[in-house]
Amino acid sequence: MRYSYSTIIRLARFNSSTISFIGPLNQHFYKRTFITRPVDPLETVDMGKDKAPYQLKTPKGTKDWEGKDMVLRDRIFNAITTVFKRHGGVTIDTPVFELRPILSGKYGEDSKLIYDLADQGGELCSLRYDLTVPFARWLAMNPSIQSIKRYHIAKVYRRDQPAMTKGRMREFYQCDFDIAGAYDRMLPDAEVLRIICEIFGEQGLGWTDEGAFNIKINHRKVLDGIFEVCGVPKEKIRTISSAVDKLDKSPWEEVKKEMIDEKGLSEEVADRIWTFVQRKGGKDVMDALRQDERVMGNESLKAGLEDMELLFTYLDAFGVLSKVEFNLSLARGLDYYTGVIYEVVTEGSAPSSTTGHKLQRAAKREKTAEFDEDRSNDPSVGVGSVAAGGRYDELVGMFSGKAQIPCVGISFGVDRIFSITKARMEDSKTVSTIRPTEVDVFVMAFGGKGFTGLLTERMQVAKMLWDAGIKAEFAYKQKPKLPAQFKSAEQSGIPFAVILGEEEQAMGKVKIKEMGLPEGHPEKDGVMVGIGELVGEVKERLRRKGEGVEEMVDRVNGLSTQDAEGKTGQ
Amino acid sequence: MRYSYSTIIRLARFNSSTISFIGPLNQHFYKRTFITRPVDPLETVDMGKDKAPYQLKTPKGTKDWEGKDMVLRDRIFNAITTVFKRHGGVTIDTPVFELRPILSGKYGEDSKLIYDLADQGGELCSLRYDLTVPFARWLAMNPSIQSIKRYHIAKVYRRDQPAMTKGRMREFYQCDFDIAGAYDRMLPDAEVLRIICEIFGEQGLGWTDEGAFNIKINHRKVLDGIFEVCGVPKEKIRTISSAVDKLDKSPWEEVKKEMIDEKGLSEEVADRIWTFVQRKGGKDVMDALRQDERVMGNESLKAGLEDMELLFTYLDAFGVLSKVEFNLSLARGLDYYTGVIYEVVTEGSAPSSTTGHKLQRAAKREKTAEFDEDRSNDPSVGVGSVAAGGRYDELVGMFSGKAQIPCVGISFGVDRIFSITKARMEDSKTVSTIRPTEVDVFVMAFGGKGFTGLLTERMQVAKMLWDAGIKAEFAYKQKPKLPAQFKSAEQSGIPFAVILGEEEQAMGKVKIKEMGLPEGHPEKDGVMVGIGELVGEVKERLRRKGEGVEEMVDRVNGLSTQDAEGKTGQ
Repeated sequence: MRYSYSTIIRLARFNSSTISFIGPLNQHFYKRTFITRPVDPLETVDMGKDKAPYQLKTPKGTKDWEGKDMVLRDRIFNAITTVFKRHGGVTIDTPVFELRPILSGKYGEDSKLIYDLADQGGELCSLRYDLTVPFARWLAMNPSIQSIKRYHIAKVYRRDQPAMTKGRMREFYQCDFDIAGAYDRMLPDAEVLRIICEIFGEQGLGWTDEGAFNIKINHRKVLDGIFEVCGVPKEKIRTISSAVDKLDKSPWEEVKKEMIDEKGLSEEVADRIWTFVQRKGGKDVMDALRQDERVMGNESLKAGLEDMELLFTYLDAFGVLSKVEFNLSLARGLDYYTGVIYEVVTEGSAPSSTTGHKLQRAAKREKTAEFDEDRSNDPSVGVGSVAAGGRYDELVGMFSGKAQIPCVGISFGVDRIFSITKARMEDSKTVSTIRPTEVDVFVMAFGGKGFTGLLTERMQVAKMLWDAGIKAEFAYKQKPKLPAQFKSAEQSGIPFAVILGEEEQAMGKVKIKEMGLPEGHPEKDGVMVGIGELVGEVKERLRRKGEGVEEMVDRVNGLSTQDAEGKTGQ
Repeated sequence: MRYSYSTIIRLARFNSSTISFIGPLNQHFYKRTFITRPVDPLETVDMGKDKAPYQLKTPKGTKDWEGKDMVLRDRIFNAITTVFKRHGGVTIDTPVFELRPILSGKYGEDSKLIYDLADQGGELCSLRYDLTVPFARWLAMNPSIQSIKRYHIAKVYRRDQPAMTKGRMREFYQCDFDIAGAYDRMLPDAEVLRIICEIFGEQGLGWTDEGAFNIKINHRKVLDGIFEVCGVPKEKIRTISSAVDKLDKSPWEEVKKEMIDEKGLSEEVADRIWTFVQRKGGKDVMDALRQDERVMGNESLKAGLEDMELLFTYLDAFGVLSKVEFNLSLARGLDYYTGVIYEVVTEGSAPSSTTGHKLQRAAKREKTAEFDEDRSNDPSVGVGSVAAGGRYDELVGMFSGKAQIPCVGISFGVDRIFSITKARMEDSKTVSTIRPTEVDVFVMAFGGKGFTGLLTERMQVAKMLWDAGIKAEFAYKQKPKLPAQFKSAEQSGIPFAVILGEEEQAMGKVKIKEMGLPEGHPEKDGVMVGIGELVGEVKERLRRKGEGVEEMVDRVNGLSTQDAEGKTGQ
C-alpha cells in the first residue's frame, strides 16, 4: 500500500493536531509506510513513484555529537568550567524558549533569525537566540540579586536564511560568563579579561604558543568620541560604527566607499576617521590620544580613555597585559554595549608548520558537510574570533524598567574552539589519547575443551570492581572466545584485562594484564594475584598508569585530562 | 506615549517577520513602551489604561534553575554520570528539535503533547518528546554502530494540555542510559538493573535506608501470555495492559469496571486476570507459574518466564537481587516495549520520621507554584516512580527498515529525584553543606588612617592563587572596609581569608585565616606566612579541610561531593 507524499504530509499534519482519536491509525500508518521499507541514511528513498515522506537526518543546520568529538567537547567544557569556578562563577539554567516579547527588539536586524514555536494555543514563545537576553530577563525577575558572577553553557538557535551566509549552524553552543553588579570602575572588566587568558592559556586549553590567541580591546566611549571629533552626525554613529567593524576583513578603501556612498559621509570626515581607527597597540596609543587636543576636549573620549588606562593597570597586576591590544578599529555589532568591548582572535600561527594547513582542511571539511562553524555574520563572534564580549550597562533595565544592573561579560564560540583544538591535537598526535569510553578494566575468561565461559564468575568479578568504583566491562556472551574479548578491550583502548581461567579460579587466583606492553616487559604476560588482592592491585596499577598518561598529555597538549582520567586537577 | 495591547502585539508580530528595515523603529518602540516603565516580576503591570504587553516570567511549565538548587542538581547529574561511565557508557548529543515525521507515530495518544516549531519556511520540526526516539533515529542513521552503551542527559518537551493534570513541567530533564546491540539473552538487561542500584545506592545518591528504593519488574511476554491464557482477544491486549498498569494507583474494582464497561471484557476473563496480576515476589512467583499447566502451554509466557529466571540468576551474581520484585501487575504505558519492563519506586520510608512530611511539604510547595514534578500521566515515569524503562527490540527498525538493533534502557526522572534528595538533605541538615560558589579563598586587606586599599596587591595575590589553580575572589572596590570583606566571604561560605595589611605587606608577609573557627582555637586569629609560602600553606589547609568535609558529608548523606569539593571520588 502506498501513499503519495502530499497524502502523507496531510495525514501527518492531521495527526499532530487531532491525534487523540486516531492514535492507533497513526501507528498502523507508519508501520505500513515506514517500518517494512528500508530507509537509507541521508538518502531520499524512492518509494515507488512517490518521493519518500522524509529523510532520515537531523534538521538543517543541526548535527548529532558523538564518539571522540563528544569526549573532546566535554573536555573543553570542563576546562572552561574549571576556570569559571576558580573565579567564583555560579551557573544558572534558563528554559530553551522564552516568551516572544522578551526576545523582540533586542537583536536589531538579526531578529528575523529567531525560531518561533508554533501557535498551539496559549503563550507565544521563541527559541533563545543567545544567553545574554535570558540572563538580563532573569536578573530583572530576581531583584534581590544585585550582583552575580554567572556562567551558562547551553545551546542557542538562529534560523539562518538561505539568502545569507551558507552553512552556519542553526543549533550551536554558547558558553557565557558575565559579572553583574555595581562595582568600582574596570575591576570586573579586568577579571573577565584575566578569565579569557586562563581559558586559552596554560591553565585551560593550552594554546600557549606565541600568537595562538590575542585580545583586541576598544571602548564604546572612545569610539563614539572619535566619531564625534571627526564630525560624524549623532544619528549616524551606530551605522558608521558598523562600517568600521568590517575593517578586520575589508580594506579601508571599501569601508570608506560604504561610508561615503551608502551612509552619506563626506570624504573629509571619512579620512579623519581613518587617521584614528588604524591605530593599535598598548600604552603608546593612549599616550598619542592624550596628546591630541581634539581628543581631550571630547567628554566621551576622555572618559573612555581614563577607563582604558585604569584597565591596563589592572591587566598588568593580573599578569595578562601582553595578550591585549588596544585596537581603535574594533567596533562590535551589537547595540547594547556601553563600555569596553573585546574580541579574542587566533592568528593562525601554529605549534608546528602543519596546523595552519590542518585548520584549513578542517574548515573545508566542515563547509562541504554544511557544518561550517564560521559564524561570520554572528554578532557575538566575529571573523577569526573565538570569543567576544563587552560591557552592557543598560540591558537589564530594558526588562526591569527602574533598576539598571551594570554587566560585563564574554561569550566563547565553542564550535570554533572545538575545531581548532581538534586540529591542534591531530597535529600534535595527541588525538589518540582520547578514548571513546573511560573503562579501565575488561574482565575476561578463557578455558580449554568443555570451557563453561565462567559467566557468573566474570559477573562477580565485575561486581567487585564496580563496588570499588573501578570502571569495568565484560563480554555479554555465555562462552566468549579469548581473542574476541581481547579485541573488544583493544578497540575501546581499555588499559587492563583481568583474566579468569578455570584452573586459576580453583586456586582463588586471577591474572591482571596490562594491554599493549612491549615484548620483554616483565609483566608482558600479566601477573597472577589472589582474588582478595585484585581490587588493590588494579587500583595501584591505575594510579601509576594515570600519572604517566597525565604527564604525557599535559606536556604535549596542555588540555586538562582530569575528566578523562577520573583525576582532579583543580 | 502609550500603545494598546493589541497594537503592541501587532507591532511585535510585524517586527518579527519584517524586522530588516524597521530595526531601529523596533528598538525605539521598546524603549518607549518598556524601558522607561517599571515591570514587576510575575505581575502584570498596569500601563495606564492598557494591560502590560507581557509578564516578566518564563513560559508556562518552565522555570529557571539557580543557586543551591542548581548546585544540587549538578551533583545529582555528576553522581549519575559517574555510574554510567563506570559501566562503559558514552554520551551522544542530539538536536533539541527533530524533523516532525521522526516523532510522529511513536507516542500514541500523547503525540498531541509534542511542541511544534512554527512553519517559517523549510522543514517542519518539533521539539523532542523524549530521548529514546532520537537515539533510535541516530542508531538507524549510523549503521556502522551495531552496539553501544549510550547515556544522554538533556531536556525534553511536553505540551501538557490545560484539560490534563495540572502543574506538570513542560520542559524537564531526562537522564537515559541504553544498551543497544544483539547480545546473549538478559545480560545487558541485568547490567541496566545493576546500574539502577548503583545510582540510588551507596555509590550514587546514597538512598541506603531500607525501602528507600525498590525495583518492580515484569516482562511483556509474561504479561501478554497471561492475557492470552485468560482469554483476552488479541486486539484488546494493549488496551487491557493499560488498564492493568493503573493497579498501582487504583483498586482492582475500578480497574475491573474499566475492563468490563469500557473495554468490553467479560467478568469471567477479568477475574481470571486478577488471579494472576496480584502476584508479586521473587522466585516463588516463578515457581508458582511453572507449576501452572496453562502457563507452560503458552509459548509467550514460557519464553518470558525463562528470561525472568535467567535474569534473576544474573541479578544474584551482581548482588542486587534483594532490591528487585517480580510484579505481575506492572505493565508500562509505552507500546514499544518487547521484553523485560521495570519501574523504580520509592516507598516514602525515610531516614528519619520527618522526611516523609518534608517530602509532602516539598511536593505541596511545588504544586502551589505550578511546578509539580509529579508527572503522573508521563508514560516514562509512573506515580511514585523515580525511574523506568525496559527492553525495546523493534524501535530502531521503525527507522532503519531492514536492520533491527535490540535495545534495553532506563530513564531517570531527575526532577523527582531532585525533590526527594533535597528533602533528604534538609532532613539530615546536610543542605547547609551546599555552597553557592566553590571559592576557597577571599583575598582581603585592611589598614588604618590613610589606608590605600592595597588593590594592586590584592590583585597580585589573587593572580598568584589563580596561577596555582586555587579558587579565589577579592572585593571589586578600591578601598573596601574589613567587615564588608568578611561579610562577603561569610555569605558565600568561603572557608579561608587571606588578609593583607600595610605593615605585614612591608615585611613580605600575609595572614591566612580559616573562617568560623571556634573561640580558643590556636589558629582563631589566623597565621602569618611569608608571601612565598602562601600558595603551599593554602593548599595544605584546603586538603585537610576537604578531607574533613568529605568524610562528614559522606557519613550523613552519601551523595558524592566530588564536584563541590573539587575532589575525585571515582
